[in-house]
Amino acid sequence: MADIQLASNQYGKAENRVVRVIRDTDRHEVRDLNVTSQLRGDFLTAHTEGDNAHVVATDTQKNTIFAFAKEKFDSPEQLLLRLADHFTSSFDWVTGGRWEAEEFGWTRISEHDHSFYRGSPEVRTAVVVKDGDDTTVIGGFHSLTVMKTTESGFVGYPKDRYTTLQETEDRILATNIATRWRYNTRDMDFDKAYASVKGVILDSFTQGYSKALQQTLYQMAEAVMDAHSEIDEIKFSCPNKHHFLSDLSPFGLDNPGEVFYAADRPYGLIEATIQRTGAPTADSAWNGIAGFC
Amino acid sequence: MADIQLASNQYGKAENRVVRVIRDTDRHEVRDLNVTSQLRGDFLTAHTEGDNAHVVATDTQKNTIFAFAKEKFDSPEQLLLRLADHFTSSFDWVTGGRWEAEEFGWTRISEHDHSFYRGSPEVRTAVVVKDGDDTTVIGGFHSLTVMKTTESGFVGYPKDRYTTLQETEDRILATNIATRWRYNTRDMDFDKAYASVKGVILDSFTQGYSKALQQTLYQMAEAVMDAHSEIDEIKFSCPNKHHFLSDLSPFGLDNPGEVFYAADRPYGLIEATIQRTGAPTADSAWNGIAGFC
Amino acid sequence: MADIQLASNQYGKAENRVVRVIRDTDRHEVRDLNVTSQLRGDFLTAHTEGDNAHVVATDTQKNTIFAFAKEKFDSPEQLLLRLADHFTSSFDWVTGGRWEAEEFGWTRISEHDHSFYRGSPEVRTAVVVKDGDDTTVIGGFHSLTVMKTTESGFVGYPKDRYTTLQETEDRILATNIATRWRYNTRDMDFDKAYASVKGVILDSFTQGYSKALQQTLYQMAEAVMDAHSEIDEIKFSCPNKHHFLSDLSPFGLDNPGEVFYAADRPYGLIEATIQRTGAPTADSAWNGIAGFC
Amino acid sequence: MADIQLASNQYGKAENRVVRVIRDTDRHEVRDLNVTSQLRGDFLTAHTEGDNAHVVATDTQKNTIFAFAKEKFDSPEQLLLRLADHFTSSFDWVTGGRWEAEEFGWTRISEHDHSFYRGSPEVRTAVVVKDGDDTTVIGGFHSLTVMKTTESGFVGYPKDRYTTLQETEDRILATNIATRWRYNTRDMDFDKAYASVKGVILDSFTQGYSKALQQTLYQMAEAVMDAHSEIDEIKFSCPNKHHFLSDLSPFGLDNPGEVFYAADRPYGLIEATIQRTGAPTADSAWNGIAGFC
Repeated sequence: MADIQLASNQYGKAENRVVRVIRDTDRHEVRDLNVTSQLRGDFLTAHTEGDNAHVVATDTQKNTIFAFAKEKFDSPEQLLLRLADHFTSSFDWVTGGRWEAEEFGWTRISEHDHSFYRGSPEVRTAVVVKDGDDTTVIGGFHSLTVMKTTESGFVGYPKDRYTTLQETEDRILATNIATRWRYNTRDMDFDKAYASVKGVILDSFTQGYSKALQQTLYQMAEAVMDAHSEIDEIKFSCPNKHHFLSDLSPFGLDNPGEVFYAADRPYGLIEATIQRTGAPTADSAWNGIAGFC
Repeated sequence: MADIQLASNQYGKAENRVVRVIRDTDRHEVRDLNVTSQLRGDFLTAHTEGDNAHVVATDTQKNTIFAFAKEKFDSPEQLLLRLADHFTSSFDWVTGGRWEAEEFGWTRISEHDHSFYRGSPEVRTAVVVKDGDDTTVIGGFHSLTVMKTTESGFVGYPKDRYTTLQETEDRILATNIATRWRYNTRDMDFDKAYASVKGVILDSFTQGYSKALQQTLYQMAEAVMDAHSEIDEIKFSCPNKHHFLSDLSPFGLDNPGEVFYAADRPYGLIEATIQRTGAPTADSAWNGIAGFC
Repeated sequence: MADIQLASNQYGKAENRVVRVIRDTDRHEVRDLNVTSQLRGDFLTAHTEGDNAHVVATDTQKNTIFAFAKEKFDSPEQLLLRLADHFTSSFDWVTGGRWEAEEFGWTRISEHDHSFYRGSPEVRTAVVVKDGDDTTVIGGFHSLTVMKTTESGFVGYPKDRYTTLQETEDRILATNIATRWRYNTRDMDFDKAYASVKGVILDSFTQGYSKALQQTLYQMAEAVMDAHSEIDEIKFSCPNKHHFLSDLSPFGLDNPGEVFYAADRPYGLIEATIQRTGAPTADSAWNGIAGFC
Repeated sequence: MADIQLASNQYGKAENRVVRVIRDTDRHEVRDLNVTSQLRGDFLTAHTEGDNAHVVATDTQKNTIFAFAKEKFDSPEQLLLRLADHFTSSFDWVTGGRWEAEEFGWTRISEHDHSFYRGSPEVRTAVVVKDGDDTTVIGGFHSLTVMKTTESGFVGYPKDRYTTLQETEDRILATNIATRWRYNTRDMDFDKAYASVKGVILDSFTQGYSKALQQTLYQMAEAVMDAHSEIDEIKFSCPNKHHFLSDLSPFGLDNPGEVFYAADRPYGLIEATIQRTGAPTADSAWNGIAGFC
């Protein structure tokens, strides 16, 4: 028999779809979440012997999420923090874990009191990782697709045997922004910060001429770090959604940046992490997040 | 050998992703389409003998779409109509066809001239079906998710051996609206009509108490038909996206309509067609559209 | 107010995921279905007045499906037929409806008694449409992706101003077969017929040189109709999944049909209906099936 | 301005769909890959200044992939290794990177020479991470759905205020296996190892009574490590795909493990890493892989 050992492990209930209606007045509010809870700690014998004495059932984790969503709702991050504190304080052998939420935004229809449409283009994300006394809170969003129809180019890159790309100084720049940022505190208004970061990123995207998506990402990161001292780190993972100029010359037509073919695959993929110089890092908190280097 | 015959058939190029930038001034506009072209007519020997003399290549259809998108862009419906006229007039044996487009909406970021985000929750649809001299234009949209957090119930239904559902007079009503409507003219401003119909549907959704999704759909249909005499028929296909009240009583918690579990499957599915009394119908134009009865 | 009327309509519970284990002996069998039930009949006042006296709850339809799956399981088609008979005979105002199932295939692991992997590439489909005394049974499958790496070409098509495609006599032919066929009887072994039809289609795909996907579809249809007198009609809707030869000449490499780029969109889309000459048709039974002309 | 720094970053071309036909004889073979290439190294000024002098175009990376796929094809892992060696040796400032492939399996139809169907239920994965002189090769697969219809239970777990789950000693155990394993050498037959590991995992899944998914995962890991000394580490990320016994008692029906409702969300999620004791680890090579702790 091979000499093996159990290393990192976690388990829980994924994708609990919690819809919380805040109806203290006739003007309702909706928070629509997809919550995942995963526990870490001493679960060795569950793996090696099938002894479940330590295995807080994933069904119990689910129930706890719904009960906690009832008791109070302020922000996804605060809900996750309360869950993290609960599980690690309730069970000796649970020494940490990972809690994650997606939030889907709803917009009031014509200022109606209790009618909404799902109107937010992006999906908000929140992660809390707890490891003993260390707690990390990561905000973010994905699926925010943006486009500049001019003021973007790509020139000056190295040419080798395999290079056929032509330089261009006027192209469409389009991407689907996925970003995550790490807070350096848990005592704050996460909803307010979220709205601000999203706004800063969108505004930054519009600024100036883009020489490459790398430059644009860095510029967005810089703008966020300038505006938010409670953020120590931000990551981007952004596809370069290619829009190829349609070649209409065989049909006797000119095409001065008017008709494009939007390609699916392959796509450029640009990923970068920007940190506040000198701030503590928290590398292990990022494990398991897809597509962020 | 069996005695068989070729009945209905059509072929073409599907999902041509055309992005049209209108840049006559510094304030650009974007139209983002997914266009499918399919031809009908005399294609018998292509099937029976592999004789391609009549088979206008799907690649040619694609090229034509891009060329036509360059020449002029007013609305998805008008682009499809021009394609329909072109193919049926250019090739004797092409007697009709089906042209379809999805349109994805982009919203200007902070009133910027050439920066946008993909911000429309719904996907607009347009279909043109041509059959000899008959041309049918169908507008529509899908994926517009709406929710009422109160003023909805379901009571008074028949109970049989298999009925376990409890009546309720306060529930969440949520659906993902898919709708298609048939115009009775091709000479009109389809963009303007689209915006209006969408607005009428959303407003109608907010009105009054809903006794069942059937009633709400009919009410939306009626509002559209009242407001738009150029529409003779409208269809809805709407899932009842169940939001089940979370049972928190085992944990000693009350739950007066505050915490819900949003289920994926199964879901109710309600479909209805409403027609203007006495107007001509066009049943065959609806063939092949998924999920509309 | 507009003068409008309710035309076709149907409602029910969609995508009930029923897994039926047949465990009469230690050697278990698994049938894994996704079942949708929709009723038609007199539901006018539900729409116009919110009167639910006729509305057999979608939840009741769901319960009935699970109960019927327990009582007996022979084939998806037979389960749907029993549901159709039940609803139309139990409620006076239910005059018809539409019942649909997808089936996902499981394969025994190493001939083990009760361990399986989900191993079927295609998804089987079944539809029963009942309208008064008429009952239509439609079998089918989708998502069966097939490829020929040679013995396929495309030449002899018309060339116009918009044609740039080059003729080829050696290309990859690949498609994702979606097909539906209509039985002319309800008294038969549908599982056995399904396995046979699938085999006939796969074998036919391998035969000979393909001059166009149209020809290949027709050849498959003919083979099915030859082999199955209990089938009166078959439809195909097949994307031409383009595999473009990669141009390696800029790198000094030859590429004699060895390296291809598999494109996502756009794709050719070929649809055809083949009927047994002289057999009764059942056009309305096909309504609402996506992508079949 | 905030004092910030560029930390980890990588970029490249994602999801290059390469289909390689091996046609040295009339009996063709097909390898169908989805390849991503990402480079790491000194790309600072691209981010901070938009200076692209170091930015090997993602289009160039794409071309290189297709060219390399032509020159030779042995296994996904070997193709990625050749790409890694090429980019790091060709450009001084490229000090490492990440190369990934998915492979989709094709099965010969009736032993035909050049006709295939896409018949593999799982998607094979391969990752090569290069960091200076360190090269890590990770094999794996995902989407292999397996089920045991008996010989599985879950008892003996802790009960707290939020626990409502009932113990059971006969349930369905179903999961969608995603696994990745790290090789300790690059000089080997990866295709042969892949087939063996997959077989060992499937066989292990059938063995014995499962007290929890954790135990089953560990058992599968142990079997792989026993059989493959060239593997030092294996990770699993497996949803517990719940199949809930349908409650048919309201309808007077018994349900002894025969009819189940297959739920979508939420689902249990069990993740574990098993390592060979004393072997070197390579933690950073796992960054960015979704859902593996």
